[in-house]
Amino acid sequence: MTIATAWIGVDWGTTNMRLWAIDAAGTVLAERQTGTGMAALHPRGYEPALLDAAADLLPARRRTPVLVCGMAGARQGWREAPYAPVPGPPCGLPPVSVLAADPRLDVRILPGLCQAAPAADVMRGEETQIAGLLARTPGFDGVACLPGTHTKWARLRAGRVEGFRTILTGELFGLLASQSVLRHSIGPGWDGAAHAAALATALAAPERVPGALFALRAESLLAGLDPAAARARLSGLLIGADLAAAADIWRGQPVAVIGAEPLAGLYAAALAQQEAAVRREDVGALTRAGLTAAYETLSGAEA
Amino acid sequence: MTIATAWIGVDWGTTNMRLWAIDAAGTVLAERQTGTGMAALHPRGYEPALLDAAADLLPARRRTPVLVCGMAGARQGWREAPYAPVPGPPCGLPPVSVLAADPRLDVRILPGLCQAAPAADVMRGEETQIAGLLARTPGFDGVACLPGTHTKWARLRAGRVEGFRTILTGELFGLLASQSVLRHSIGPGWDGAAHAAALATALAAPERVPGALFALRAESLLAGLDPAAARARLSGLLIGADLAAAADIWRGQPVAVIGAEPLAGLYAAALAQQEAAVRREDVGALTRAGLTAAYETLSGAEA
Repeated sequence: MTIATAWIGVDWGTTNMRLWAIDAAGTVLAERQTGTGMAALHPRGYEPALLDAAADLLPARRRTPVLVCGMAGARQGWREAPYAPVPGPPCGLPPVSVLAADPRLDVRILPGLCQAAPAADVMRGEETQIAGLLARTPGFDGVACLPGTHTKWARLRAGRVEGFRTILTGELFGLLASQSVLRHSIGPGWDGAAHAAALATALAAPERVPGALFALRAESLLAGLDPAAARARLSGLLIGADLAAAADIWRGQPVAVIGAEPLAGLYAAALAQQEAAVRREDVGALTRAGLTAAYETLSGAEA
Repeated sequence: MTIATAWIGVDWGTTNMRLWAIDAAGTVLAERQTGTGMAALHPRGYEPALLDAAADLLPARRRTPVLVCGMAGARQGWREAPYAPVPGPPCGLPPVSVLAADPRLDVRILPGLCQAAPAADVMRGEETQIAGLLARTPGFDGVACLPGTHTKWARLRAGRVEGFRTILTGELFGLLASQSVLRHSIGPGWDGAAHAAALATALAAPERVPGALFALRAESLLAGLDPAAARARLSGLLIGADLAAAADIWRGQPVAVIGAEPLAGLYAAALAQQEAAVRREDVGALTRAGLTAAYETLSGAEA
């Protein structure tokens, strides 16, 4: 059987690695995901991890381009890739080649983005999703919202990223829900009304959020607050604070919310409630579109 | 040798236990501190821990009153003590007796305080420091600020606690500095100017704090931010957010800052900068004064 893979696109994050094998016509031949993220790997572990996941997708006797975005390009990753500065295009620097031992591999890592002012900021991986958004919606003038462990808000105009801001919302939720005193009051389950009310309160008066956190614990002690409602309220307070901290970016703009349920849905609903024109985008589709754009640029440059 | 202890006062917190043996004239005969806080003890461990620390201070052949404030009265403590409601005096309910096996012990645990509205809140231990403040400064009309793992802000008037608010500032600092992505950028040391600037920024625009946290990481990656400055800035951002979250309580009021260096000094300096009339108070002295007031009430009631 002939292996028809023309190239492989990889989204190598902190906790997961996801790849697509794509043929010359742009068809996805295979999609795979593993738990071998940056956090689980030493620099020498990347090539074996890639081969474990994709050796059977590599044609023999030729080098297959493998385009990698995400944390594999971090200082503690496979090989450090630079950051392209903003304002600028989401993928404004050429990818960095990695020397692989296996002769079937031609690995390149895409640069991230950095911002010097008004505040220092960096991203790795999200720039490829933004490139995918701009590839699929040329001329998009608005904001990309990428909710997650580190939510990213990026202002896009004329094919460029004008600026962006990172907010540690997912990480803060995880620490507070599982490691702080609030953990005693938080359980599984969800309460949509409690979430929406807490989010609205936090967005209207974000300066009150630090004082509202301990109230979850106290209400649990004094009034038996439902652990599912406590969890939903904590999430609402933190997402409300996130939206408030980025309001100067998204207010009055069309917003593309890039992410999976349930988190991206919560952001999209809250933004719609604030009268933002919201569209939902799929992370995998945008990542693939961004990697494809990078592959096409590379092929064109080397043709 | 005769043991002259008339009674023992104990501040039994989450991580430490501190006690004073006091004679009939009110003189402190001994002061001891151990690491046997609530977190390290099962309910049956309290009496042995107390005897380990204080057996030699107990006169033979009579029961010595032992007055305990703090987390020993929590549900997971020695014995659950109630919460007295606010508005009300800081020690408005009688202490709860604990049955001790040792015939020399007459143990009583002081109730905490609870608030139902405008937001649920609780305290255990700080009410005794507040009682001490009011015992030493009768008629104090203003705010008690007790910085710590869980900072407490309490509005005091006419010998009563009108209301209070808990803010998880110390706990948040610990989680972010040691467990979040920021830990890679934070090191020992201090930068006073960086702290003051971050605090002022956070107090002026608290809604921006969630977006300012990740900038510490990014500035470390992009510009080699000094790890001591990163630590001082994180502290400044969180204390600024704390002051902003409690501004409706302290603004325009005299504030008694109750706590030890360096943390209480940072709060006091920031409040003074905001033109609050600030006085510093020693935790140990106020705790002892509060326990003494409770002991005198008890002695009077049983005389």
